[in-house]
Amino acid sequence: MSKRVIALLTDFGLRDPYVGSMKGVIAGINPETRIIDITHEIDPQDILGGAFVLYHSYKYFPKGTIFCVVVDPGVGSHRRAIIAETGDYLFVAPDNGILSPVLEKENIKSLTHLTNKDYFLPFISRTFHGRDIFAPVSAHLSGGVSPQLMGETANYFNKIQIYSPNQEENLIRGRVLYRDRFGNLITDIEEKDLSGRNIACIRVSSLRDGDEIIINKINQSYSESPVGDLLAVIGSFGTLEIAVNGGSALERTGTPHPAVEVLFDRS
Amino acid sequence: MSKRVIALLTDFGLRDPYVGSMKGVIAGINPETRIIDITHEIDPQDILGGAFVLYHSYKYFPKGTIFCVVVDPGVGSHRRAIIAETGDYLFVAPDNGILSPVLEKENIKSLTHLTNKDYFLPFISRTFHGRDIFAPVSAHLSGGVSPQLMGETANYFNKIQIYSPNQEENLIRGRVLYRDRFGNLITDIEEKDLSGRNIACIRVSSLRDGDEIIINKINQSYSESPVGDLLAVIGSFGTLEIAVNGGSALERTGTPHPAVEVLFDRS
Amino acid sequence: MSKRVIALLTDFGLRDPYVGSMKGVIAGINPETRIIDITHEIDPQDILGGAFVLYHSYKYFPKGTIFCVVVDPGVGSHRRAIIAETGDYLFVAPDNGILSPVLEKENIKSLTHLTNKDYFLPFISRTFHGRDIFAPVSAHLSGGVSPQLMGETANYFNKIQIYSPNQEENLIRGRVLYRDRFGNLITDIEEKDLSGRNIACIRVSSLRDGDEIIINKINQSYSESPVGDLLAVIGSFGTLEIAVNGGSALERTGTPHPAVEVLFDRS
Repeated sequence: MSKRVIALLTDFGLRDPYVGSMKGVIAGINPETRIIDITHEIDPQDILGGAFVLYHSYKYFPKGTIFCVVVDPGVGSHRRAIIAETGDYLFVAPDNGILSPVLEKENIKSLTHLTNKDYFLPFISRTFHGRDIFAPVSAHLSGGVSPQLMGETANYFNKIQIYSPNQEENLIRGRVLYRDRFGNLITDIEEKDLSGRNIACIRVSSLRDGDEIIINKINQSYSESPVGDLLAVIGSFGTLEIAVNGGSALERTGTPHPAVEVLFDRS
Repeated sequence: MSKRVIALLTDFGLRDPYVGSMKGVIAGINPETRIIDITHEIDPQDILGGAFVLYHSYKYFPKGTIFCVVVDPGVGSHRRAIIAETGDYLFVAPDNGILSPVLEKENIKSLTHLTNKDYFLPFISRTFHGRDIFAPVSAHLSGGVSPQLMGETANYFNKIQIYSPNQEENLIRGRVLYRDRFGNLITDIEEKDLSGRNIACIRVSSLRDGDEIIINKINQSYSESPVGDLLAVIGSFGTLEIAVNGGSALERTGTPHPAVEVLFDRS
Repeated sequence: MSKRVIALLTDFGLRDPYVGSMKGVIAGINPETRIIDITHEIDPQDILGGAFVLYHSYKYFPKGTIFCVVVDPGVGSHRRAIIAETGDYLFVAPDNGILSPVLEKENIKSLTHLTNKDYFLPFISRTFHGRDIFAPVSAHLSGGVSPQLMGETANYFNKIQIYSPNQEENLIRGRVLYRDRFGNLITDIEEKDLSGRNIACIRVSSLRDGDEIIINKINQSYSESPVGDLLAVIGSFGTLEIAVNGGSALERTGTPHPAVEVLFDRS
């Protein structure tokens, strides 16, 4: 049996036995496969959050990794389940858009509508296809079964949009797409949006300290600013991140979704 | 060394180094064994909750799995520790009833009172037998040591009861045994209790919207009901589950322990 | 490739994809290594808490374990990163004191200032050296690369102090260094500080029930005291622990940092 990695990304949390049951199913089908948790703490049913996290973490996994992605508010309905094969990876998920940011970036080699029950558990519950469908399918893929044996070729996948900063001549209006445990606020403004331009300032709306906070430059590190000050940095997601040295930008601004605007010098 | 799975189920949480220390101990004794977490977020000292979660997840693990189950309010007292061997599995736990729902369902091949200190860590703390006794014993079992070498045959195990819906002629009065991260309320009413009977309605008591909410049928999926409506479905635990499409039944009813009654048509 | 264990200890939490990305990087470099989480729930940027948890858990891991310890408020600044080699273990961490309690106890065989970018990811972010430096370095170490190839010999490491009970003739004034999920309050008073002396009583300050609570002896187990009573026990960290049978000492005293004093009989 192959030792391919199965990377799990779900909204199941770690309190309930859901993730453990998925891993039990996988270990029963392919004892050699290695399971790595990306996270299980996507907000319940937050497809956009799951898409964002997947998009920013998948490339750190080894070639051959099978991503088993289950944020599935439509479980048990007629929503489709799909397997997407790219140059380096396989992705298994409900077809609700959660894979779309990755698939629009990658070269898709095959797309399969998952229908062959031979690779599911014998009994399929109505509410937990993570355990009954996505886990066993991922385990069989890790063992070398071809996606083409698991269903029919699909012609499309559903799409959602996660990146859309609004660009004007001397201004980019960004959004905060994600806040992490440190209270860092991660925007949709990518490093390339800023390159080769002189930044006049960054405006961050705030529910505290008046309407907005002005940041004058982009830091090289958190600790370059005084402790407690709001700062901007190109974070580990490759986008502009609003943070506080030794603190939380979420607490500092009082909101998880401040408006973030980058103003450039007129050229 | 064998590659058997050790499945861990505890109330230790993931904040403290307790679970990591157990895994370190296991890896030191049997480097080949595979460790899978069922969950560590059983409410502190909640034996009933641990029993429920184990009962509903163990069968998803491969044959040969060793379940190391530690919810142990009596640690350091004279409570016994036991190993139970069934047709497919081994279970290691304090003898406080946490194994009883599984053991009453399975065929017990052997029951051992765990006393042989050769298989414990050299120094036994007074408060953490998970690390000092249950982890090393599980690791030695995974390496092939016979349970019979680890203590004397036991003649009984302590019992607790988790399933007891109250059945009358045209009525089942159930209880909510578990609520999950999605706010789904999982009852003790099993699918077989309902089969072959026409359901008139399901009554769920509520602290909001008046005294109770009436549900008219059992869904095939969450999404079959309008978003926000309270619904009933046979959930992934195999029992009647009260849920909300796109929301939380816990929030909708305002209580983690509503009364749930199924009324049948008079036959 | 070697099957050495990499033990991870961070403040990254499990909500974000940070830990998963680190594991993906490790699996890509050394597919055979085994990863064990100590915990990722160190309070954000709490170096002292991380040092405490490491100090009390590392000895439960097998010889050869590589500890990848990332609590890193100075990420991206000029703080150094180090590898410390002891008789049994390797430790990789920012040089902010987090390793110091362990290194002052162990015999240091080599200390390396981590500078060789050949063992880092090709692109180093400004904010996430866990993924870009500490994970790949740990993976290369697990594969057998010598620490000496990864940088220059270092002559010192930064120190912090976690143990400092104040001892007078018939009195030890301790501090609570850690509270766990059960609300147990773990002090810095070690078992050896108490041995061979007759304890008159233990005084625990409280925000409830008057100014302080008197405990008359050290228990052998939690359950030796009546349910609800504050008690003292030598806990699993090897130090005096204040606890409540069937409850939480944190809730009982109303404070995570009560003063704890042990009074001895005059000899």
